[in-house]
Amino acid sequence: MTEIHSLMTELGRAARAAGRVLALTPDQARNDALKAAAARLRASASAIKAANGRDMEAGRAKGLSDAMLDRLMLDDKRIQAMARGLEDIAQLPDPVGRVLADWTRPNGLRIQRVAVPLGVIGIIYESRPNVTADAAGLCLKSGNAAILRGGSESFHSSHAIMAALAQGITDAGLPANSVQMVPTTDRAAVGEMLTMTDFIDVIVPRGGKSLVARVREESKVPLFQHLEGICHTYVDGAADIEMARSVVLNAKMRRTGICGSTETLLVDRRLASTGLALLVSDLLAAGCEVRGCALTQEVDDRVVAATEEDWRTEYLDKIISVRVVDGVQAAIDHVNTYGSQHTEAIVTEDPAAAETFLNGCDSAIVCWNASTQFADGGEFGMGAEIGISTGRMHARGPVGIEQLCTFKYKVLGSGQVRPS
Amino acid sequence: MTEIHSLMTELGRAARAAGRVLALTPDQARNDALKAAAARLRASASAIKAANGRDMEAGRAKGLSDAMLDRLMLDDKRIQAMARGLEDIAQLPDPVGRVLADWTRPNGLRIQRVAVPLGVIGIIYESRPNVTADAAGLCLKSGNAAILRGGSESFHSSHAIMAALAQGITDAGLPANSVQMVPTTDRAAVGEMLTMTDFIDVIVPRGGKSLVARVREESKVPLFQHLEGICHTYVDGAADIEMARSVVLNAKMRRTGICGSTETLLVDRRLASTGLALLVSDLLAAGCEVRGCALTQEVDDRVVAATEEDWRTEYLDKIISVRVVDGVQAAIDHVNTYGSQHTEAIVTEDPAAAETFLNGCDSAIVCWNASTQFADGGEFGMGAEIGISTGRMHARGPVGIEQLCTFKYKVLGSGQVRPS
Repeated sequence: MTEIHSLMTELGRAARAAGRVLALTPDQARNDALKAAAARLRASASAIKAANGRDMEAGRAKGLSDAMLDRLMLDDKRIQAMARGLEDIAQLPDPVGRVLADWTRPNGLRIQRVAVPLGVIGIIYESRPNVTADAAGLCLKSGNAAILRGGSESFHSSHAIMAALAQGITDAGLPANSVQMVPTTDRAAVGEMLTMTDFIDVIVPRGGKSLVARVREESKVPLFQHLEGICHTYVDGAADIEMARSVVLNAKMRRTGICGSTETLLVDRRLASTGLALLVSDLLAAGCEVRGCALTQEVDDRVVAATEEDWRTEYLDKIISVRVVDGVQAAIDHVNTYGSQHTEAIVTEDPAAAETFLNGCDSAIVCWNASTQFADGGEFGMGAEIGISTGRMHARGPVGIEQLCTFKYKVLGSGQVRPS
Repeated sequence: MTEIHSLMTELGRAARAAGRVLALTPDQARNDALKAAAARLRASASAIKAANGRDMEAGRAKGLSDAMLDRLMLDDKRIQAMARGLEDIAQLPDPVGRVLADWTRPNGLRIQRVAVPLGVIGIIYESRPNVTADAAGLCLKSGNAAILRGGSESFHSSHAIMAALAQGITDAGLPANSVQMVPTTDRAAVGEMLTMTDFIDVIVPRGGKSLVARVREESKVPLFQHLEGICHTYVDGAADIEMARSVVLNAKMRRTGICGSTETLLVDRRLASTGLALLVSDLLAAGCEVRGCALTQEVDDRVVAATEEDWRTEYLDKIISVRVVDGVQAAIDHVNTYGSQHTEAIVTEDPAAAETFLNGCDSAIVCWNASTQFADGGEFGMGAEIGISTGRMHARGPVGIEQLCTFKYKVLGSGQVRPS
């Protein structure tokens, strides 16, 4: 037994015990804790900024990129946003105790499927310290205990945030171990989390592809995760071309760094000599590099040749691959061959083509005449999400507080026994 | 690349392709295939019995126990039951395409959560050849492809059943690879199945504790499983004692070999000098060995002392452990400490005690005034079950055709783009 193993086992045991208590607390107590945590966050702004200053200094010394430093940085505005985020979560309806199904058997047994918390959620994240508050808030609201493991670059910031959350949680009389943070940057602690099946029910990795890939490789604990979002927009021959131009531009360019941004544009051959040129020139005009198939290259000199590798690439940048395909079935085949089962969209006025596409694409989210950038728990009206899952088990698409619950069956009888 | 690896990869690829087709077939086609398979099973009775004869002979030579030989044995009645089972599954409502949720966002986007098949189900089972037909039928009905791996003792029987199913499936025009059987008894094939995350979405181990334990240890693929059913019945001080006697006797003795049978009886201290003696003498009179705590031993000389180990034991036999506890909270603590999160029951006329127990026991199924032996998909009205899960992810309790589905989100728009 290594020291890290003992430490993590203790953490796990404490989380399980806290989770059992949390699962039975009324919504009001969980909401009070969220509001108290928000208040403590605001009151701790100076301490949090001081801790963040240490992380920023170390990050600069270490030569972190400007983008990473920006993710790491906390100021009053960001601390306010974290606090407001917790208060917003407190406003969401209680996901625990929902009666998901309720039926009565011929023998009079009444059977209810009732939502209960999953238990203990592990969150492994990189250098965004705000995940500390967001993830803890979603777990708390859904009656789950949480074990957080933040990135080493944000160690001091995350711990300062955690200290404020812990105060709020105990202010409201909830168990002190409802949310715990792994108190070491030793990577062995991550290995422990990934195999603690007795103490952690699900792990949410939040970070880049390399983090998620490692977690997928090693984890014995179920995951809510997506490795990448190779999202497609297919413009059908029966599309309203003005709508298509607007949707495609938004799907690619609104934000290029998020998982729901379109990486490949598929265009029906019927549009090869008409709409295709408009779609491509819109993208080029917006500063997007276009890598196209032979037909796409014909419409504009600035289009460079796409390789097989492009169809498999999540650019997360101002780059798009464009391919002309023979109608909706060829589009589906492309999506199911090269995609990552995240989010796809079709633009068409033809309901039959839309139905074929929506059913045929084996993806978590499929859109008709709407931008793939709507792939987001907030946009879905779930309030907030702890992540997006491309897995098929339990939760798929945005993972909000309802998805952080499982269920149990309550069988209500009047003395029924089972016949032989 | 070993030969087994290549073989299993081929099987997996074929299953994935068949699953994609199956997912889009109408319910009628799947029902037709189930009925055709039933007809082919009946028509193949002689061939199936001949194959079973070879397995029985080998089993006897190998010295299999009578219980195992009985599980292995197929006769006309059992073949008829398999065929009828498939026809019953065909009668169930279509689980695919159910709209599980449907809402419209302020921006006009309509979001639907729609049930879709999980994809490819792997079933690893022991010497019951009828699992071949039952599991294949449930997968087919729910639009999933299946990869079956039966026990080596039932190799010939399972393959004869499989041949009949395959004929029925192709009779109805569904993909020939909708259901496949691993064509080797090499155990390396199981190892491949447990790591084929690209081709198998969930595995259902059906068999004894050692099989399930091995699968749990090795699997990278999610599982629907329970290791054991250490089920409890708690008789509260406010119980109707006649009801309690009837429920307890049924919960333990109706069938002692199933996972939902009660293994431990917990009795409220308020009944220690009254009802406890009745409950114990009923069990003894029915031929059940009783292993009790000190107070339980006081009520009857035939009660032997229970050890700590007894509280953790799934007897699957005519043995019960009995413990006097200090009320409902102590009962819950015992269940959550020693149980296997399968099924628990409380007998009481006190609704508050019942609510405390039902909420407090961290188990998949919790019963009030009903026998734990109702833990069964058929008794729940699900038609049939592929197994019972004590996991918390995706499916919990009986796993029927609805639980063999996941969902996707359909986002229906009219050109919406996401604001910055």
